[in-house]
Amino acid sequence: MTEKMNRQWRLAARPVGNFKDSDFKWTEEPVPALNEGELLVHCQYISLDPTNRGWANATDTYLPAVKLGDVMRGGAIGLVEESRNPKFKTGDLVSGLLGWQEYAVSDGTAISKLPVIPGLPLTAYLGLFGHIGLTAYYGLLDVGMPKEGETIVVSGAAGAVGSLVGQIGKIKGCHVVGIAGTDEKCKWLIEELGFDAAINYKTENVSEALKRACPKGVDVYFDNVGGEILDAVLAQINLGARIPLCGMISQYNATERPVGPSNLAMLIIRRARMQGFLVSDYMHRAEEAMTQLGRWLMEGKIKYRVDVVEGLEQTPRAVNKLFDGSNQGKLVVKI
Amino acid sequence: MTEKMNRQWRLAARPVGNFKDSDFKWTEEPVPALNEGELLVHCQYISLDPTNRGWANATDTYLPAVKLGDVMRGGAIGLVEESRNPKFKTGDLVSGLLGWQEYAVSDGTAISKLPVIPGLPLTAYLGLFGHIGLTAYYGLLDVGMPKEGETIVVSGAAGAVGSLVGQIGKIKGCHVVGIAGTDEKCKWLIEELGFDAAINYKTENVSEALKRACPKGVDVYFDNVGGEILDAVLAQINLGARIPLCGMISQYNATERPVGPSNLAMLIIRRARMQGFLVSDYMHRAEEAMTQLGRWLMEGKIKYRVDVVEGLEQTPRAVNKLFDGSNQGKLVVKI
Repeated sequence: MTEKMNRQWRLAARPVGNFKDSDFKWTEEPVPALNEGELLVHCQYISLDPTNRGWANATDTYLPAVKLGDVMRGGAIGLVEESRNPKFKTGDLVSGLLGWQEYAVSDGTAISKLPVIPGLPLTAYLGLFGHIGLTAYYGLLDVGMPKEGETIVVSGAAGAVGSLVGQIGKIKGCHVVGIAGTDEKCKWLIEELGFDAAINYKTENVSEALKRACPKGVDVYFDNVGGEILDAVLAQINLGARIPLCGMISQYNATERPVGPSNLAMLIIRRARMQGFLVSDYMHRAEEAMTQLGRWLMEGKIKYRVDVVEGLEQTPRAVNKLFDGSNQGKLVVKI
Repeated sequence: MTEKMNRQWRLAARPVGNFKDSDFKWTEEPVPALNEGELLVHCQYISLDPTNRGWANATDTYLPAVKLGDVMRGGAIGLVEESRNPKFKTGDLVSGLLGWQEYAVSDGTAISKLPVIPGLPLTAYLGLFGHIGLTAYYGLLDVGMPKEGETIVVSGAAGAVGSLVGQIGKIKGCHVVGIAGTDEKCKWLIEELGFDAAINYKTENVSEALKRACPKGVDVYFDNVGGEILDAVLAQINLGARIPLCGMISQYNATERPVGPSNLAMLIIRRARMQGFLVSDYMHRAEEAMTQLGRWLMEGKIKYRVDVVEGLEQTPRAVNKLFDGSNQGKLVVKI
């Protein structure tokens, strides 16, 4: 064994509000020798996602809370550098919750081998062909069930998931309205991605803008943010509307108990459905989505933007771009 | 034509909080002569329901708001006294939104003829074989989709809908927990209706009582009340839970903008569904529910309690029994 050094970010404190540098601790330690059945992954890109924030809280979510002192949990892709596991060989491309570190030792159970598709940049696996693409694809089509001619509203529309949701909505023949936080993002949604309208929630009255942008009401609201925007959309849902709940980014950093939507009774008045989902429930159907998304990408029907931050050192600061709205596309760290 | 007098309650003011006597005006006027196609119904029983309160607001709900000066809207059953409509004949038993009055003239479009079942009291049609029974039956079975062995929680459990929901849940082999507002009601739920447990939300800590009463978590929450109880149950839902939203009685009399549940993100964490429904969407399937409910009633598997207030004059005061929790079973007025 070469005496390789691993560089890591460990969770040092429970964050209050946004992440702070002091919530993490940088450590360097030798990469341990592999036991039988283990493999060593040289991580290439870390995926930064809103869910990172939830994992850092003391309370368990859909996964147990990250323990203080542990390497921070995070999705990543990497190349197998050494393997004592018969299912993996050196050079395999893998993805999994490898953590915020340069090297990860795995017993092979929680990682999956990725197909190498010629011409596809590595970053496409972090998202489009991974949890982002599947979230958008199944959240919209399986949970939202849009029909041709219906109106779809998506919040966090310039984010990795939101921008895909809108584009898939257009492919399905829907009227698509995005909600985002800057004029530049709104312009991008309309001019580059083909959204029918976009609303800047920071400068516009969302309720009134929705009325203009959705003259026939809202049939599907793909919710990435929760909070006040969810409330505003609820007031304008149509009979039988579907609301896939994908995330509540407006509340992840909340230091006080969040206030829920006051318009929940609209679900009764409009006989509508609000449904939470997690991409992990669709992993067994990953191939269908990947095939379809790959085809649309080749045909130029969907665009996928990646925001690459260089250097593992930058990770704690980079992750807050998700919450201040400054990232443009899928946020990743190149190690 | 005999010169019959009609006695009526008209909406005189928009209520603030609970109904007050001054929100209604008593009027007496001659019953008009029938035009071709019309029929005259002699109303027998008025059904009082939480939805009455919503109809009296200035804002349209799933039906247009009742106009000031109009006869107050309300479900009722009555006997056809005279008919110039070929579809109805004198003596037919009918139900519909006949209003808070002794006589109703109808063009026959919004009322339906009821089958006369020997031995069945008239009050059973106001509810068990009407909107109450169908609400409980389809709300629980179609929207809630309980499976044998699962845990069902129902709020407003001693109400007309809630008490049926729990009994149907027991027939389906579920663990059933009711939430109600007095010890007497809780005792009735357990001892008379066979609920497994009951929680008095006025004297107990609902969250802790739920933990004790639902050791395996909550699979179906049939919500009649919204507000804080919805929030408490959300915190304890299981993976894939279903929450049929039937009503939000805690908010109907709200004078300030209601606060929604802070635990809405649990829908994501538990991949759960919250779905509003209205019995009117199930009217075309009424026969299935009536057949099944009728069978259970004959077999002694369900009990149905009616709270009869005597006299049309009492209607405005009687309706508030729904909101102060003092009614015991389906609330009706005998005209």
